[in-house]
Amino acid sequence: MRMLINVPETVVADALRGMAAAHPDLSVDVEGRVIVRRDAPVAGKVALVSGGGSGHEPLHGGFVGPGMLDAACPGEVFTSPVPDQMARAAAAVDSGEGVLFIVKNYTGDVLNFDMAIELAEDEGVRLAKVLVNDDVAVTDSLYTAGRRGTGATLFVEKIAGAAAEEGAPLERVEAIARQVNDGSRSFGVALSACSTPAKGSPTFELPSGELELGIGIHGEPGRERRAMMTSGEIADFAVSAILDDMKPSAPVLVLVNGMGATPLLELYGFNAEVQRVLAQRQVAVARTLVGNYVTSLDMAGCSITLCQADEELLRLWDAPVQTPALRWGR
Amino acid sequence: MRMLINVPETVVADALRGMAAAHPDLSVDVEGRVIVRRDAPVAGKVALVSGGGSGHEPLHGGFVGPGMLDAACPGEVFTSPVPDQMARAAAAVDSGEGVLFIVKNYTGDVLNFDMAIELAEDEGVRLAKVLVNDDVAVTDSLYTAGRRGTGATLFVEKIAGAAAEEGAPLERVEAIARQVNDGSRSFGVALSACSTPAKGSPTFELPSGELELGIGIHGEPGRERRAMMTSGEIADFAVSAILDDMKPSAPVLVLVNGMGATPLLELYGFNAEVQRVLAQRQVAVARTLVGNYVTSLDMAGCSITLCQADEELLRLWDAPVQTPALRWGR
Repeated sequence: MRMLINVPETVVADALRGMAAAHPDLSVDVEGRVIVRRDAPVAGKVALVSGGGSGHEPLHGGFVGPGMLDAACPGEVFTSPVPDQMARAAAAVDSGEGVLFIVKNYTGDVLNFDMAIELAEDEGVRLAKVLVNDDVAVTDSLYTAGRRGTGATLFVEKIAGAAAEEGAPLERVEAIARQVNDGSRSFGVALSACSTPAKGSPTFELPSGELELGIGIHGEPGRERRAMMTSGEIADFAVSAILDDMKPSAPVLVLVNGMGATPLLELYGFNAEVQRVLAQRQVAVARTLVGNYVTSLDMAGCSITLCQADEELLRLWDAPVQTPALRWGR
Repeated sequence: MRMLINVPETVVADALRGMAAAHPDLSVDVEGRVIVRRDAPVAGKVALVSGGGSGHEPLHGGFVGPGMLDAACPGEVFTSPVPDQMARAAAAVDSGEGVLFIVKNYTGDVLNFDMAIELAEDEGVRLAKVLVNDDVAVTDSLYTAGRRGTGATLFVEKIAGAAAEEGAPLERVEAIARQVNDGSRSFGVALSACSTPAKGSPTFELPSGELELGIGIHGEPGRERRAMMTSGEIADFAVSAILDDMKPSAPVLVLVNGMGATPLLELYGFNAEVQRVLAQRQVAVARTLVGNYVTSLDMAGCSITLCQADEELLRLWDAPVQTPALRWGR
């Protein structure tokens, strides 16, 4: 096992202690598993709360801060957080303007967030929920009814977060989050499987010289296995898979995302190929983000997310954000 | 070979094309291999230029922008850029106030930057140079006379970059860069070797269940191989190796750096252990940065860099920076 850990049982708690030490503008409850922006609740502002299994860092904890999430609830690795944890996060950040839950479409997450809504509403918190389900690779998967939620989560959290920061009411923040999700599509590719701390070995066997097309973010196998392809061939395949399912009517935001173990040198090279394919397909690009944002532990590989952005969404994307992992403007 | 590339020969050019597409505020000369901040030369400002072999991204290209580098020269993977390239970068960014070369201490880099100084001076550019040599792991290595330059490069580029941005003259920017390097020490650990695109296989064999202590950033073997250690044991070993060589007289900046393929979840957990050891050793921590900043392709592992920061260096560290990889303030 090649892991920089103490024991599998403390991986999440150890990471939360390390986050607390590195980011004094976050308030990290290690025991209760909630990461909160330190100035929450922010008067007059709708609060955004997300969460999900750990192992996708910086998602979600690295997206907590002004202009994005008010709180994040990390579960165990690849395991949904629990309803009580989510309800406590909602109560901690609610200013009275209500809370939007951003939920990736995995069966466990959906069930637990729904239970959390009941718990929080019993406490008098007004709740709304948006489901993220952007992955075009599979219709249903090992862990989902319907499409999986992957890279679009970053766009939903950033753009809805900017709307909330500007003082938009809950219904408007929810509508924007839904618009972002509806206009986003993703496709992922693995060059290696990932190893969870508990298992200590790869979640599936991927022989050297092969790649897996259409993977999710939990080490689940993909749509199809093939002999190794070039960066250009992968870009052709993945962008085509997305555009088969989406006809962009506005310029797109592009996320070229690493799955955790792919060097930035390779991700930038891959971005060049993605941009080539988009130009050939006459898709206008408004902004591009390259890096490891929605990861799957130590998986080598990448995903592409395209998000249609009209002028208003683009303005919200460009709005200031101050989180550990995304940070610009002020 | 598990790499997201086209062919090994175009890896660097492909990455530069991808950087150009993602970062419109950089000017990227793909053919000439120079990345320049778009508004350079900045009138009245000393310019900072660095460079080195590719494979360490985001170092150095990801550190080009206001508050940090004016230009970066990427070489081939793990290979020094050439003198002509460096001299062209210097000429492109010189406003007349002179240029500081920031050079990691590797034999090839040192020779080539020294030749570039002669070339640029012939063109009338005033040059100074600072050598970064912070790695306490080995006295000499495969690629160096003296200590290797590793994580401290980030501190030198950020802090001297802030001084230059404020309008400090060349001699002062050089003195600050030297002070940062002299007050910085690093130690790195590999859980796996890295594979260069040209070779396609690991640069050394590291059996599962073992780790290599005291590695550099070019896939060269380290000081000592041991059976796998816990995150806490690695932190004890690495921080002790640094503090054997340095008695901090001021609070330190801490860089907990990933080598490229280690998940952020593990790096944050490792940071918790690093902070524990520093507290036990009564070393005060001023700021902490956790992430993949000075990498070695797809190597799994981490390094720690400590940088003593008096009030002035801390102020310069906190000053605004706007680059692809480091970005805060304004």
